[in-house]
Amino acid sequence: MPITAYRRLADRFRRWSALREAAYVLQWDMEVMMPTGGAVARSEQNAALDLASHEILAAPETGDLLVAAEADRNGLDDWQGANLAEMRRLQVHATALDADLVAALSKASSACTDAWHRTKASGRFADLRPVFAEVVQLNRLAAQAKAEKLGCLPFEALMDQWEPGARMVEIDRLFDDYAAFAPGFIAEASAYQARQAPPVAAAGPFDRGRQKALGERIMADLGFDFRHGRLDTSLHPFSTETPADVRITTGYQDDDFLLTSLPGILHETGHALYEQNLPPDWRLQPVGRSRGMSLHESQSLLIENQLYRHPAFCRYLSPLANRTFPGHEAAFTPANIHRLLTRINPSPRRFEADEVTYPLHIILRYRLERALIDGQLAVADLPSAWNDGVKDLLGVEVRHDGEGCLQDIHWYTVYWGYFPCYAMGAMIAAQLFDAASRALPDLEQAIAGGDFSGLRSWLTRHIHSQGASRPMAEIIRAASGEALNPAYFRQHLQRQYLDA
Amino acid sequence: MPITAYRRLADRFRRWSALREAAYVLQWDMEVMMPTGGAVARSEQNAALDLASHEILAAPETGDLLVAAEADRNGLDDWQGANLAEMRRLQVHATALDADLVAALSKASSACTDAWHRTKASGRFADLRPVFAEVVQLNRLAAQAKAEKLGCLPFEALMDQWEPGARMVEIDRLFDDYAAFAPGFIAEASAYQARQAPPVAAAGPFDRGRQKALGERIMADLGFDFRHGRLDTSLHPFSTETPADVRITTGYQDDDFLLTSLPGILHETGHALYEQNLPPDWRLQPVGRSRGMSLHESQSLLIENQLYRHPAFCRYLSPLANRTFPGHEAAFTPANIHRLLTRINPSPRRFEADEVTYPLHIILRYRLERALIDGQLAVADLPSAWNDGVKDLLGVEVRHDGEGCLQDIHWYTVYWGYFPCYAMGAMIAAQLFDAASRALPDLEQAIAGGDFSGLRSWLTRHIHSQGASRPMAEIIRAASGEALNPAYFRQHLQRQYLDA
Repeated sequence: MPITAYRRLADRFRRWSALREAAYVLQWDMEVMMPTGGAVARSEQNAALDLASHEILAAPETGDLLVAAEADRNGLDDWQGANLAEMRRLQVHATALDADLVAALSKASSACTDAWHRTKASGRFADLRPVFAEVVQLNRLAAQAKAEKLGCLPFEALMDQWEPGARMVEIDRLFDDYAAFAPGFIAEASAYQARQAPPVAAAGPFDRGRQKALGERIMADLGFDFRHGRLDTSLHPFSTETPADVRITTGYQDDDFLLTSLPGILHETGHALYEQNLPPDWRLQPVGRSRGMSLHESQSLLIENQLYRHPAFCRYLSPLANRTFPGHEAAFTPANIHRLLTRINPSPRRFEADEVTYPLHIILRYRLERALIDGQLAVADLPSAWNDGVKDLLGVEVRHDGEGCLQDIHWYTVYWGYFPCYAMGAMIAAQLFDAASRALPDLEQAIAGGDFSGLRSWLTRHIHSQGASRPMAEIIRAASGEALNPAYFRQHLQRQYLDA
Repeated sequence: MPITAYRRLADRFRRWSALREAAYVLQWDMEVMMPTGGAVARSEQNAALDLASHEILAAPETGDLLVAAEADRNGLDDWQGANLAEMRRLQVHATALDADLVAALSKASSACTDAWHRTKASGRFADLRPVFAEVVQLNRLAAQAKAEKLGCLPFEALMDQWEPGARMVEIDRLFDDYAAFAPGFIAEASAYQARQAPPVAAAGPFDRGRQKALGERIMADLGFDFRHGRLDTSLHPFSTETPADVRITTGYQDDDFLLTSLPGILHETGHALYEQNLPPDWRLQPVGRSRGMSLHESQSLLIENQLYRHPAFCRYLSPLANRTFPGHEAAFTPANIHRLLTRINPSPRRFEADEVTYPLHIILRYRLERALIDGQLAVADLPSAWNDGVKDLLGVEVRHDGEGCLQDIHWYTVYWGYFPCYAMGAMIAAQLFDAASRALPDLEQAIAGGDFSGLRSWLTRHIHSQGASRPMAEIIRAASGEALNPAYFRQHLQRQYLDA
């Protein structure tokens, strides 16, 4: 009875997905609404939710149903088959580790996260080295256990949690290409910018309520559906994976919006458009979710970098900015906005990076985390390897671990293998925007006029509505006509930074 | 190994409580934050959470552990023993009904709630009578099944879900007393008010932001801990049972705050003070929760009616109101505020009721729901029985079912046996405030000066910190020196409405 087994699995994963959505709403609430004294109780609520959803995946019945459904998958159509494969992938991740390892990982990660929060200010990596070494060792074991079940290399098994099917040989191909290109390009573009007069600064104060209203206006123009989402405020921008009710946030500063609140809003709107336009017939099923975090980042970066920093978008934005904040006409010309949004500024800190240097931060992290998991880099050597890498790739000095290997929380909690998605997303975004531009000949004119419906429809048809029905590589090839090609990102940067 | 079984139960109920808290946060979000398009997804999230927490209570292991722990409860101290008894009560409610009845109830209740939402506007009870008749019949069966397990009468078993150990003989004693007293009192007090000049109306508009700031000032004075809670806006005021992070809400109108936003805030602050001051050592355990909804309502009504409408509180409020909204000095004298807050106005609608007529609305509902469950009232006869009861108890006419038996959602969803708690709470509040006044001789002066710390401490010591460690009757006797006595509520009304 394969259909019966499949239907019962669909019920189970529907419950699992609903619990994950509940967890997302609680996370949003924690960042946006929760009073400080609620933190301990919230972590208990999260733990109870995590356990309840884990139990659905890990229950022996789930394994039995998977075996039964897989035994006659010929009875399933393509989407059902893809759904079943995603169910299996989620179940493998949930059950690959024995209970002792899960408990040890959870305990060590918690302790390490706490230590990181205490240490990042003082900036001394040595203070958390022992507890971090344990986290690395346990993640090595986890990577090996998962790799055996998934049939891939250990570090790939960690990436697979975020980017299903990720392969290092492919990532190396793309990242090595960029690492070879970037240093020369940064020097060339920096020299080019140094020859120009600096852009006119837009000096605030800019009322935060008006910043928000401007952001909501642009979100609406982009096709964000406010019946199924909200914009709120938090320290760092983020969005939730809850298609029927996508919460996005940004942060505000009084003296700027072009480089702070707006790119945050645009980036998260890109994520939100993906979520809001996932296939409605597959809501709460694994195949109805996004196809991994690289493609998700491609959607946010397409809106933030390909669209927002496009000269045509600056023509759309200029009159809106002038109407919202009169008296800054010199700063808010289309050309000046474009120059403000495309300044190169190499820094040791990822959070400050521009779109040119950003992938180098990611490439460094990817190389180091892979080496830590493979045992080719000792934990004690991480700070010096980090600092050497920053000098080598970005040409700047790291003054202390707080702006070096302690700056990101990822490894000190559970986000091993996540970093590559950020840079993959930037490359995919460039290729997709190029494909959309070819498919939509009037795109520039439409953008300048604030009509984003063609672009949004193209993205929905080729990306959003595909859900997780096919591997990412297939989705990209079908959308753009070729495999992921790093040349598109290079060409994008050359146009943006060299008028090439 | 009774301690081992008890400890394992404590772990299970800790998870159960954390999931219930998560559900409360989602409910708050739904009323306060959620965009309209999120409704369907939210109901799926709620259903998944309900099922996950139900499974913890209903698991065979939970039953086995309860038997093992109960077998040697002598090894437990008083609070542990009370905790174990509460665990058993929760488990009985979760397991008393067979799966078919649970499914039928859930389906019929959902259909009936939908039908009510469609019907309440048109106001024709006959339109939902068939589906409501099924709900009544299924609740009869549920009441009988639970009564057998709990050793009580069927309707008492429904009340037990909200008010553990509730007994109809006790409720009849209190309600019959009030039903005999009220009609004569209402006539007397109405005549008394008719002889006075009407109070000076406070005519707005009153800025909503200032209304909120005034409410937050009063909340802070009352001891509400904003590190562990928030005030927000919703259509109807409510509060959450989440002690470390209590969310309360109120609604605002432009033309008034004394009779709308403020009593909502004060009422919910009473609930919040109970939650925020529950015994911290028993967080997330059943014995660490409130001792039932009658006592919970007593805490909200003590703040809303005993305190807020007290002449001494009006002396405290008068200068605050004048500072917040200058230009209304004649309306905001202490005496005029008190007269505004104590107007009698019999109406067929519970939501509009004053504190004198409110218990009569409850008494009517209690008598009718009990008769429906006991089979003494046919569903078809509900509208006429309702209308006769309103005429008899309140002396007013019901013009259509929308302001009659369709006005409250309770029976059309799952809140059978809940109504009595509202009126019980009013009576308990009067008795507790009287006891606090005797224990704190300077209470009136402190209230007039805005110092509520003595009252708050008294309530925390005698009520809040007791959690669910003892039956409500014992808590009331220990706090006030006697069993629940309806005379205190009568005396309170005579003082407030007759200057007696």
